[in-house]
Amino acid sequence: MKREWTQLWLKYEEKKNCGNGIYFERLWIEGFELAHPIVSNAVKEVKMGAAGMLGLQVQEEQGTTGLCLRRTDKNTICAEGYALTEQDGCLTVEARDEKGLLYGVFHALRMVAMEKSLSGIRLVENPDNPLRMYNHWDNMDGSIERGYSGKSFFFENNQVVVDERTVDYARMVASVGINGMVINNVNVKNCATWLITDKYFDEVAKVADIFAGYGIKFFLSLNFAAPMELDGPQSADPLDPEVQSWWELKMEEVFDAIPNLGGFLVKADSEGRPGPFTYGRTQADGANMLADIVKPYGGIIIWRCFVYNCTQDWRDYKTDRARAGYDNFIQMDGDYHDNVILQIKNGPMDFQIREPISPLLGGLMKTNQMLEVQVAQEYTGHQIDVCYLIPMFKEILDFQTYCVEGKGTVADVISGRTFGNRNCGIAAVCNTGNDTNWTGNDLAAANFYGFARLAFNTGLSAEEIAEEWIRMSISCEQEVIDTILGILLPSREIYENYTTPMGIGWMVTPHEHYGCSVDGYEYSRWGTYHRADHLGMGVDRTDKGTGYAQQYHEPNASMYNDMNTCPEELLLFFHHVPYTWKLKSGKTLIQHWYDSHFLGVEQVEEMIKAWESLEGKIDGGVYATVRGRFDRQLHNAKEWRDQVNSYFYRKSGIADEQGRRIY
Amino acid sequence: MKREWTQLWLKYEEKKNCGNGIYFERLWIEGFELAHPIVSNAVKEVKMGAAGMLGLQVQEEQGTTGLCLRRTDKNTICAEGYALTEQDGCLTVEARDEKGLLYGVFHALRMVAMEKSLSGIRLVENPDNPLRMYNHWDNMDGSIERGYSGKSFFFENNQVVVDERTVDYARMVASVGINGMVINNVNVKNCATWLITDKYFDEVAKVADIFAGYGIKFFLSLNFAAPMELDGPQSADPLDPEVQSWWELKMEEVFDAIPNLGGFLVKADSEGRPGPFTYGRTQADGANMLADIVKPYGGIIIWRCFVYNCTQDWRDYKTDRARAGYDNFIQMDGDYHDNVILQIKNGPMDFQIREPISPLLGGLMKTNQMLEVQVAQEYTGHQIDVCYLIPMFKEILDFQTYCVEGKGTVADVISGRTFGNRNCGIAAVCNTGNDTNWTGNDLAAANFYGFARLAFNTGLSAEEIAEEWIRMSISCEQEVIDTILGILLPSREIYENYTTPMGIGWMVTPHEHYGCSVDGYEYSRWGTYHRADHLGMGVDRTDKGTGYAQQYHEPNASMYNDMNTCPEELLLFFHHVPYTWKLKSGKTLIQHWYDSHFLGVEQVEEMIKAWESLEGKIDGGVYATVRGRFDRQLHNAKEWRDQVNSYFYRKSGIADEQGRRIY
Repeated sequence: MKREWTQLWLKYEEKKNCGNGIYFERLWIEGFELAHPIVSNAVKEVKMGAAGMLGLQVQEEQGTTGLCLRRTDKNTICAEGYALTEQDGCLTVEARDEKGLLYGVFHALRMVAMEKSLSGIRLVENPDNPLRMYNHWDNMDGSIERGYSGKSFFFENNQVVVDERTVDYARMVASVGINGMVINNVNVKNCATWLITDKYFDEVAKVADIFAGYGIKFFLSLNFAAPMELDGPQSADPLDPEVQSWWELKMEEVFDAIPNLGGFLVKADSEGRPGPFTYGRTQADGANMLADIVKPYGGIIIWRCFVYNCTQDWRDYKTDRARAGYDNFIQMDGDYHDNVILQIKNGPMDFQIREPISPLLGGLMKTNQMLEVQVAQEYTGHQIDVCYLIPMFKEILDFQTYCVEGKGTVADVISGRTFGNRNCGIAAVCNTGNDTNWTGNDLAAANFYGFARLAFNTGLSAEEIAEEWIRMSISCEQEVIDTILGILLPSREIYENYTTPMGIGWMVTPHEHYGCSVDGYEYSRWGTYHRADHLGMGVDRTDKGTGYAQQYHEPNASMYNDMNTCPEELLLFFHHVPYTWKLKSGKTLIQHWYDSHFLGVEQVEEMIKAWESLEGKIDGGVYATVRGRFDRQLHNAKEWRDQVNSYFYRKSGIADEQGRRIY
Repeated sequence: MKREWTQLWLKYEEKKNCGNGIYFERLWIEGFELAHPIVSNAVKEVKMGAAGMLGLQVQEEQGTTGLCLRRTDKNTICAEGYALTEQDGCLTVEARDEKGLLYGVFHALRMVAMEKSLSGIRLVENPDNPLRMYNHWDNMDGSIERGYSGKSFFFENNQVVVDERTVDYARMVASVGINGMVINNVNVKNCATWLITDKYFDEVAKVADIFAGYGIKFFLSLNFAAPMELDGPQSADPLDPEVQSWWELKMEEVFDAIPNLGGFLVKADSEGRPGPFTYGRTQADGANMLADIVKPYGGIIIWRCFVYNCTQDWRDYKTDRARAGYDNFIQMDGDYHDNVILQIKNGPMDFQIREPISPLLGGLMKTNQMLEVQVAQEYTGHQIDVCYLIPMFKEILDFQTYCVEGKGTVADVISGRTFGNRNCGIAAVCNTGNDTNWTGNDLAAANFYGFARLAFNTGLSAEEIAEEWIRMSISCEQEVIDTILGILLPSREIYENYTTPMGIGWMVTPHEHYGCSVDGYEYSRWGTYHRADHLGMGVDRTDKGTGYAQQYHEPNASMYNDMNTCPEELLLFFHHVPYTWKLKSGKTLIQHWYDSHFLGVEQVEEMIKAWESLEGKIDGGVYATVRGRFDRQLHNAKEWRDQVNSYFYRKSGIADEQGRRIY
């Protein structure tokens, strides 16, 4: 079968042996059942990998050398964890459960793909986060909300698609430890509401079943108003017994039809979506009602906290969208049942290139929390511009919330280390589509890969992850690795330099969210303002402004509240700052803005030169695709530079000290 | 048959007799054939009108009193003109041709509908403009480009619609003297390209035939690249003999299939439409090629002059979209064949609330010219906001181009009085759709009515036209007339006050063109900039700027070139003006802006009060629809006021002298 898609980091092309051949001559299993779908898939993967990378046909037989897949109950190995141990030519993968085994096998194959020797290896890997999920914003008509890589491979013409690509996708995400998947858009409309009816059960169950074979729990986004749109009562009031009865029957039906169903993701009372507020009920009323009903099936309800007023009056300086998540959810801390998880976007706004961390993370002390980040580059370049996001995700995870002494980072909170909860973890809006290369820009696959790796092991550095991805996907040549690392690692700061530095965000083309429009959202209902006038810019979110800074634990609250201690990369998020304000560098704010935007474009030009040095050294198709995207990135960067600089020059009347061209 | 549309000014409801009954007891014809479709329709109309308005059954018989329809060859009556004469109870409509007769009959009926006595009437009316056209921007999928009154009634699901509404539409526009109609969008794409094939001939010919019965020549918009998209050569080069041969056969076929076809409207080399420039040919090459081919059939080619660079770099201060029409067409003055008409938008930009008159009008001295205005309220309020456009059209027609002494107004030029040409006139983009009331806002029908009346008789005042329309459509009560006149007549200036005064234009939401977005087009490719900085705003189009002002004949060129003599309502179109510039009123520019925007909102509030005084005095449905639109207009006006004032306050730092609220 000719596949019209690549295999990304699982391409299993010929690799230098590095002495790894001995482990892949034979394979045997101890304590696991080969008949178990996950085990069977693991073995299949070993055979494929060995054949492709080492030219070996793996024999299923025991021996003194080779690969041993063994069940263990060692205390050091947790659920979904594994150990890799090599001794005397025998490589052992040990795990408590099938998922762990599969991850261990993929780890071993990863070493081969990276051209690293397995000799003497001795490691234990346990996942840092219980839930490691991708959320797809795929619509049933095949479109993808905020998708930049073609159409959906889950849906087409209001039908569910199940084919070999579904399998390859499951393999790919399982290979990096993803264990949960939402396949439909959180904005559940039209046909998608019917995914929980027998109209779609057969096909949905097939997809879920494929995922089951790779240890991935299957989730659906749910329409809170489903009773009204399907055959239920004309209400969605969570406290209405009729509504509850309808959901009880519905859930029985759905969990029966989809054995691998893990539960549901719900966007309620948000951007026009229905929710409990419609009936004067709390978010907890809504989430708990559903959670209680799915509990007998082991289901969980993941409830998004993206609730804010999206019809704000721009004239209103008191209302602050940044406050909304915290204000809407903090009072009910402790009210949510144990199988509810609140899914919280990393920042209080919406996936800007830089935001402070949401004060709900660690602000909530008695509620299951899950971090939501966006791998899809909605505000970070649409997979046209290169923007390696793992450094940003690292910053988020490392952020010290001060909620509990000694274990107060975001990583601590969402992993369950802080409060001891099991229903928690991390989710990302995925960036894939049916493009041949899955992610539009080939380099965007580093984010698709990297998020999952980081979710499994939050201790990995952004550089380690990037190098893994480059070795497996592009080349193991040191020169190529170094060049691409040189492009990926600073790319987020470069994007920030030429777009919206210092935490101000937005200034994008409305709706589309690509390209510059400084005032695009300034006089709109979306609560996303820069408040620039002829003297300064930024939003006063201190105790004298909207009070948002006070939503943090101390000392963060005080740090952000003071212009002198607020980190400069977030200065304009928290303060309205005069253009003439002196930064720590000695530069004025406005001069820093000009410099940052000029620098950003120069940096893109340098990235392009670096990429051009790879011509002939990497796959020609990948080279050309990325080269083409760089042209568009450079055009975009220049537009941002010139529009932003012209806008602020025209507004402030303050010239660039270096006399560069501003229009 | 229940009609789902109103009859507007032809509703023929019961009227005060005013002594007119005597003329409608009987009717006879002298010198015309009743069998002629136009004559037959005229007679039918008399019967309908008399029955509805006077409760009379008209008898077809000669008498000493009654209505006599008589052919004449009096010199005072021109083609399509008519005389109305009353003596001793006999009302005579005299005309040279059937169209004139029809118009005369409608004039008589209009008098009855307005409750004016026909007794002693003695007038001759000859049309001022040879061609009086409506252009429909209707697409075959039923959508209307820049349509604000529902869907198309000409097309639906890529089919041509022919029904009773087609007839009523023809009656309505014929009643006000329209004699040409383009039914499809100038952007000819997809199915619409096929309107000139036998796929659509049958239905198209039916529509054309209905129009023929009301004296309306039928036109189609043409896709210049039709040969390539249909079965012709893979070129549209006007000088390619193969292309020419293809058009020859095509035109023979089309004119044979559609007997009432008058010719074609062509938008070439404009906003992505193909044209002769693609082949290095001139606009004249393109227009003449088609004109020569349609000439044997009496056809004409109406060629639009809306040719400009729509991918301008906003950083480029030298290129000026305002110059483009003149620059692209002036050199070929005299090269266009006699059955080509250049159709020229009233302003050099695109139907803004106020623009200078296009310097092509009267700039061209040896070319047939047709004025194009826009009755559809694309930039003037989407038929949500009330904007009676006839005062603007009057200004345009009265503009002195100084092309020829003593007969240099735009009205002179397009009527043929200046240069003696016959192929000339006036066209308007129509504002109708399949809404019940045809025009979305009932008050917008005054524009639909008024344009046509003005096209026929450019000497009518905006007030006369409005009063005619009110009497026929709403009420003959003096209080109602006065109130609605008070709303309509200043409405264009009110809209200007709260949007973009002083000729600056734009500042609208991109693409949609409703609602404020001051910088919406400022950093775009459309050539539509305000160039506002912290010191001033406006575009320098003087000899020191883009030189646009020099495209006019003297003394206009000098008048516009000088900030002191440039009319203030166009000051920002021609000059970049400091906010502190003193206007003739003594106010600074910025203070005038603030005042104008505050005033505009107050004026809308007054309009609403005036409208509310009509409750119970006019049709309840009309009252309610317009009342609802006023709510939206007030909201829109407030948004404009606050966004514009805030934008310029933030940019200039200059406070409102009256200390009103700016954000």
